[in-house]
Amino acid sequence: MATVKLWSDAEVEADPRVAAIFADIRTVRGSDFVNNFWRGLANQPDVLERTWDGLKAVMIAPGALDPLTRELIYIAVSTANGCGYCIHSHTAAAKAKGMTDAQHGDLLSVIAMASQTNALVNALQIPVDPEFQAG
Amino acid sequence: MATVKLWSDAEVEADPRVAAIFADIRTVRGSDFVNNFWRGLANQPDVLERTWDGLKAVMIAPGALDPLTRELIYIAVSTANGCGYCIHSHTAAAKAKGMTDAQHGDLLSVIAMASQTNALVNALQIPVDPEFQAG
Amino acid sequence: MATVKLWSDAEVEADPRVAAIFADIRTVRGSDFVNNFWRGLANQPDVLERTWDGLKAVMIAPGALDPLTRELIYIAVSTANGCGYCIHSHTAAAKAKGMTDAQHGDLLSVIAMASQTNALVNALQIPVDPEFQAG
Amino acid sequence: MATVKLWSDAEVEADPRVAAIFADIRTVRGSDFVNNFWRGLANQPDVLERTWDGLKAVMIAPGALDPLTRELIYIAVSTANGCGYCIHSHTAAAKAKGMTDAQHGDLLSVIAMASQTNALVNALQIPVDPEFQAG
Amino acid sequence: MATVKLWSDAEVEADPRVAAIFADIRTVRGSDFVNNFWRGLANQPDVLERTWDGLKAVMIAPGALDPLTRELIYIAVSTANGCGYCIHSHTAAAKAKGMTDAQHGDLLSVIAMASQTNALVNALQIPVDPEFQAG
Amino acid sequence: MATVKLWSDAEVEADPRVAAIFADIRTVRGSDFVNNFWRGLANQPDVLERTWDGLKAVMIAPGALDPLTRELIYIAVSTANGCGYCIHSHTAAAKAKGMTDAQHGDLLSVIAMASQTNALVNALQIPVDPEFQAG
Repeated sequence: MATVKLWSDAEVEADPRVAAIFADIRTVRGSDFVNNFWRGLANQPDVLERTWDGLKAVMIAPGALDPLTRELIYIAVSTANGCGYCIHSHTAAAKAKGMTDAQHGDLLSVIAMASQTNALVNALQIPVDPEFQAG
Repeated sequence: MATVKLWSDAEVEADPRVAAIFADIRTVRGSDFVNNFWRGLANQPDVLERTWDGLKAVMIAPGALDPLTRELIYIAVSTANGCGYCIHSHTAAAKAKGMTDAQHGDLLSVIAMASQTNALVNALQIPVDPEFQAG
Repeated sequence: MATVKLWSDAEVEADPRVAAIFADIRTVRGSDFVNNFWRGLANQPDVLERTWDGLKAVMIAPGALDPLTRELIYIAVSTANGCGYCIHSHTAAAKAKGMTDAQHGDLLSVIAMASQTNALVNALQIPVDPEFQAG
Repeated sequence: MATVKLWSDAEVEADPRVAAIFADIRTVRGSDFVNNFWRGLANQPDVLERTWDGLKAVMIAPGALDPLTRELIYIAVSTANGCGYCIHSHTAAAKAKGMTDAQHGDLLSVIAMASQTNALVNALQIPVDPEFQAG
Repeated sequence: MATVKLWSDAEVEADPRVAAIFADIRTVRGSDFVNNFWRGLANQPDVLERTWDGLKAVMIAPGALDPLTRELIYIAVSTANGCGYCIHSHTAAAKAKGMTDAQHGDLLSVIAMASQTNALVNALQIPVDPEFQAG
Repeated sequence: MATVKLWSDAEVEADPRVAAIFADIRTVRGSDFVNNFWRGLANQPDVLERTWDGLKAVMIAPGALDPLTRELIYIAVSTANGCGYCIHSHTAAAKAKGMTDAQHGDLLSVIAMASQTNALVNALQIPVDPEFQAG
């Protein structure tokens, strides 16, 4: 279904650069499972490496927001962008990081509310209040 | 600049239904300031009422996610939807609720990362792994 | 503010191909006013001509939907796409074609409702019911 | 395929709050068929209730726009937002409300035209004409 | 899966206007294969004709950009708009026009980079530098 | 107008990490002008550094696509995402790299065509032809 080949483990192993990145993915995540996204990116090792380096820095390294909050934000962006695969993978990640059903419900409510007011603001072309301008 | 009239306080006061909603906005928020969004919605009292009722329930009432986290999600959706007004108003709201510069930085990083992988997934049309399907 | 020059009437008159299209715009619309969109497209006569021909066929020629309904659909698409200029110009066009405040309110309500359920459906990745498949 | 469980009729019946909403959906629509969207929302009764209340008020109650026009606007928004499920369900609804093939063709034409000019306006960053500003 | 019937070759042959357009598609492209997009548009001959005329003028006629570059731009737009079908068909077209794996990698990199900075710019609401204004 | 402070040169100079990145931007681009985007990112040195590193690798380093083609793709994505700032800055960059008016016209035509067919495909929910599946 993809527009590129999804690399099997055997194909990954045959390419030292890709194999090293997949090994790092498995180590950092503490799991043998490597999802299709990385198997598609394997066709372009530069993109694969840059994307994995970014994801490690942004989603896995310690930061000012806890890992679950970061997943909720990821789901929100992916939903607004309509990326089904990303919604699936990051909803699974959020559940693995402890997202409760009540938190999922709140996430859905905020996404729905924002989508609605975004559209109303666009339709009315509301000008920014001076009070909201950074000083 | 808007496609509709933005109601002044005097115009609001002259319409009992709108005036009651504005009074509730001021009470619930504990502030006299009512931003342009509501002044534009005032032209359509049904939409105004439904939107304010939704916002109160979703963004202000106690829930499973704390108020700052809900603002971060709101900003994420508004950014992906490109709603400048909403980004301004909810960034201001997040700061008022204590968002630190470091948290803002993390928010930006996650939004940028998700936008990037959303695009890559779309470009490659990656199929959903069976492991991500809800059982 | 545009990324290209907006042609003045004098510049239009000096280019016979562009002048002929502007004359047609004025005749078909029964108005001397030609808005900035066409003045920006004038830099690329092929795009100008193709766009105006399309607009005449789709928005002005008699069809199965009345002209106001077509404007409402245009506003809906432009709102979802976040095109401020288009929202402004087609809200003005809808008002010129008789859109009442109550109809504007209904339009806003449907746009807001659809935006909200679009987001919920995306977030939940709801599969299409067999009942909705064209047979 | 969804990120949440789709509730069966038996599961709905076992939850009084959800069962009452599903009963109202069936009554208001005059049909036993309840589509997957509501079965996914059933996991979050608050979101389910708020969404159904909104939909009843906006899409079913009498208003200034006739029910078919509202469906056409819904399809337009859903198309611009790329929500496949919503396009399927509301195209089915529009057909059930009498949309003819010719009207469907006009709808497609307007959506295509607006998408094209939205993109051109964005690419050229056309400034809003003073004539389009609300006074 | 479509919301309309996809016309078979037999159905196409039975409608002279549609048959003529399909014959032109086959001639211009030098191939018997006509993909589903055109089979769906066949329900609306006006839309079919206008779309095919546009595509011939924009994507096939000689121009200032070579055919492969035009396909890369098409894929970029389709990716940002999340149109899976379009990504599939135009990635196939780009490969048929000689897109190498390295070029595909660069295309993905630029799409990912732009998506990321688009989001950052939106989140920060960066004002346009005077240096970028067309003079 | 931004949601964050745009750093002046004096503020940049006072922060060694940011100053080093700005110096690199000036050296790599061979110009003293640093646009607002980087002045907004300066508030978050991690995001600034990661974004500049990405941009250097993707847009400036030699690759399989020439620099102008990469700018055209960047404009296409930014247009579909409705990022006005990005459209301004990358249209300026494309002109600086030699984009002719005729090439700009072709770019606009392809963006408009793709936007139109993306919408039609979405509205019709056309299924992917087996011929387009990667083998």
